[in-house]
Amino acid sequence: MSQLDNLLNPKSVAVIGASDKTGRIGFVVVNSLIQGGFSGPIYPVNPRLTRLLDIPAFPSIGSVPGEVDLAIIVLRKELVLKAMEDCGRKGVRAVIVMSSGFSELGDDEAEEALTSKARQYGMRFLGPNCAGYAAPWESVYASFENRVQTGNLGFISQSGAMCAVFLALARAEGLGLSIFVSYGNAADVGPDELLKYLSKHEPSHLIVGYLEGLVQRQARKFLSAARSITPHKPVLVLKPGTTGAGTRAIASHTGALAGEQAIYSGAFRQAGILQANTLYEFIDACKTLTTLPLPSGNRVAIMTNSGGPGVLAVDACARVGLSVPRFESSFMQHLNEILPPSCSVDNPVDVGPEGNEGTYQQIVQLLLANNEVDIVLVVCVPPAFSDIRAITKAVIAAKRTCTSKPLVTCWMAGDIVAESLPLLERATIPNFPTPQRAATALSFLVRRARWLSNLPKTES
Amino acid sequence: MSQLDNLLNPKSVAVIGASDKTGRIGFVVVNSLIQGGFSGPIYPVNPRLTRLLDIPAFPSIGSVPGEVDLAIIVLRKELVLKAMEDCGRKGVRAVIVMSSGFSELGDDEAEEALTSKARQYGMRFLGPNCAGYAAPWESVYASFENRVQTGNLGFISQSGAMCAVFLALARAEGLGLSIFVSYGNAADVGPDELLKYLSKHEPSHLIVGYLEGLVQRQARKFLSAARSITPHKPVLVLKPGTTGAGTRAIASHTGALAGEQAIYSGAFRQAGILQANTLYEFIDACKTLTTLPLPSGNRVAIMTNSGGPGVLAVDACARVGLSVPRFESSFMQHLNEILPPSCSVDNPVDVGPEGNEGTYQQIVQLLLANNEVDIVLVVCVPPAFSDIRAITKAVIAAKRTCTSKPLVTCWMAGDIVAESLPLLERATIPNFPTPQRAATALSFLVRRARWLSNLPKTES
Repeated sequence: MSQLDNLLNPKSVAVIGASDKTGRIGFVVVNSLIQGGFSGPIYPVNPRLTRLLDIPAFPSIGSVPGEVDLAIIVLRKELVLKAMEDCGRKGVRAVIVMSSGFSELGDDEAEEALTSKARQYGMRFLGPNCAGYAAPWESVYASFENRVQTGNLGFISQSGAMCAVFLALARAEGLGLSIFVSYGNAADVGPDELLKYLSKHEPSHLIVGYLEGLVQRQARKFLSAARSITPHKPVLVLKPGTTGAGTRAIASHTGALAGEQAIYSGAFRQAGILQANTLYEFIDACKTLTTLPLPSGNRVAIMTNSGGPGVLAVDACARVGLSVPRFESSFMQHLNEILPPSCSVDNPVDVGPEGNEGTYQQIVQLLLANNEVDIVLVVCVPPAFSDIRAITKAVIAAKRTCTSKPLVTCWMAGDIVAESLPLLERATIPNFPTPQRAATALSFLVRRARWLSNLPKTES
Repeated sequence: MSQLDNLLNPKSVAVIGASDKTGRIGFVVVNSLIQGGFSGPIYPVNPRLTRLLDIPAFPSIGSVPGEVDLAIIVLRKELVLKAMEDCGRKGVRAVIVMSSGFSELGDDEAEEALTSKARQYGMRFLGPNCAGYAAPWESVYASFENRVQTGNLGFISQSGAMCAVFLALARAEGLGLSIFVSYGNAADVGPDELLKYLSKHEPSHLIVGYLEGLVQRQARKFLSAARSITPHKPVLVLKPGTTGAGTRAIASHTGALAGEQAIYSGAFRQAGILQANTLYEFIDACKTLTTLPLPSGNRVAIMTNSGGPGVLAVDACARVGLSVPRFESSFMQHLNEILPPSCSVDNPVDVGPEGNEGTYQQIVQLLLANNEVDIVLVVCVPPAFSDIRAITKAVIAAKRTCTSKPLVTCWMAGDIVAESLPLLERATIPNFPTPQRAATALSFLVRRARWLSNLPKTES
């Protein structure tokens, strides 16, 4: 059992500062716990309430009848330390402090007082200045952020708002979460411990971190924890504050010193951590890393029905270190025999606007079967007279002939291809709206595969 | 009257190779012309048809009763030269050759034969290997691509498929087109002439080009035409094939030699042409360039309700050369008086998750009124308890107090903010889903403003 089980998988939860005003965090958190189907007792604490949302409320944490694994404090700053003391006396095992106004605004003293208090009573605590967490597989929604789709991404973030942003991006891309944790100022529980917890958390297949300025001691511990985890489970991070101006902004937001981009990037790479630079890279890498097999190399075969997007795809691959090699002459000859003379049989294979479902199925299957191809990127810009649903089904059928190579699609032209996207999603073929996003997402698979193959054999 | 008026604003159109099979280009083009409300006579030409879509068809172009400004040829390659000859004899003034299989597949000879034939009869022609064009303001849909929303972007592209992609991107972003032209192999009419035509084309406020590998002579003429246009009308291009691998792919697609990225970039910059690197940059720049005033400088004020996205926005600004300076101390003091102590009054101004519509309206107004701010970027990640519609309306109201500075929003968290996006669109406030896209789109305004301000006074 992990030290963090009382925090992240509690049997009972109290909410100190529960409220009956629907707009308040103290209401939303209690409501989230109930709506989320938490299986143990929930204890709203507020001296002015006797019931809240059809369950009994209590005037103080001390007056709660049963044991309390986790107390969530949503009081204003001045009241937090006293509540922490009460929790300690009650024997509460873990605490989340959502309240803000501590080290992030320069009040290190108040934050240290919380840490001492927690230590005095042997309580672990998350925050302050955090949004809590939601663990859909355990049915614990200990947050005011409850719009979570269940899946296999374990997400940790200093920032609570970034949890909301990530959740929305995930929803839009059909990705679900196994857990998200907002650790705020990390006065006690920090990203390193969460990383370790997630490495053992079965439903989490990919650990995803939004690391806004790790302070030095945090960074060392995080990197050290990562080194032993990344050989077994992939870890992906987005670290903002990579510019001088961003660093200054971070300092004012979290009180943490954002390090030099190059130093972090090198350290991440050494620890086997995959680093994204933008939100799109971040979510797109989640898509490929959780659904596709790792490739044996970086050789991409591109199929397209239009030259322009084909060239954009080649450019995009080159920018992220993927190779788009020419095919062997025997393979080109074979393509020449199959395709009409107006098609280009080089890589990209350009089947032209008249390329139909039959063409797509046949060519994708040949590319997947080609030993000199590690990855297949299929581009389609459907002309007005083509049947994109049929082409989509053809690609899905072709993909079934080879499950060991990653294949992604780039169905371009927005609304025109929209109705075919759910088909791709059901067939777990990641689709991207632009060649750049497709290529970048694929490059994370290559990075991961390379890193694993360079590990000493005993570790892998 | 421009030399290209017969081509791009014809009074009568014939379609040689018209078809009654709904899947064929020869059908789609005739249908597009009719559905698009073309005001002059349309003459389908096909020896096997007497009527098509309720209008009379003709066995040959020679048998068409009236004058023909424009003939669209959609025959297979072998029949094109003969059709061109027939057009010449008939006195047709301009031709579009959609058929492919010419220089893009190495058959320069066949292409030169077309050019000679056109010259012999004094006809101008577009193509071969092109998708034609659509000019919604003139109600001419001379293309198989007819899903065009009317607006003020004039788009030219070698690739027909890229027209489809661009149209879809534009639709998704609420942008409309004044015209699109696919010029294919540009055997006669090339991008330089189209650029000149669009410079005089009233409905086109921004000229947008997807330039897939300009051959040298084309490039020289294009740049020379641009130099006299960009002081008066902005020109934005996306030029793929900017990597070695991409260059090779282009050669096989269009037969054109893609030049070195650095040479082109320098030449574009000198000619005042704005260059995008990815499809998102391309469409996002269209959004800011067509809706916002030009800024006096590059100083961005960022307002956010969450630190994390604020830092991402600062990083994004720094990456594209926008400055996010600290505010004057008197201004910070003023913000301090207005905002609760938990807020950060630096740039970004972080009003925290409790920032409501009142906060947004007040702060945005102050930022717009601040003389040391050239551009305002407003970020919002709505917490579950906030009212994003009210916040949106507040920002719209604030924007009305100052129409001389560009303001964009970055409403993050996808589906959560979706219902408020139409409000922003109606208020012509460009919105972007990520800080990176917002900052990049703004940077194009700054580039344009800088270039204009560096022009000799006589030219500007």
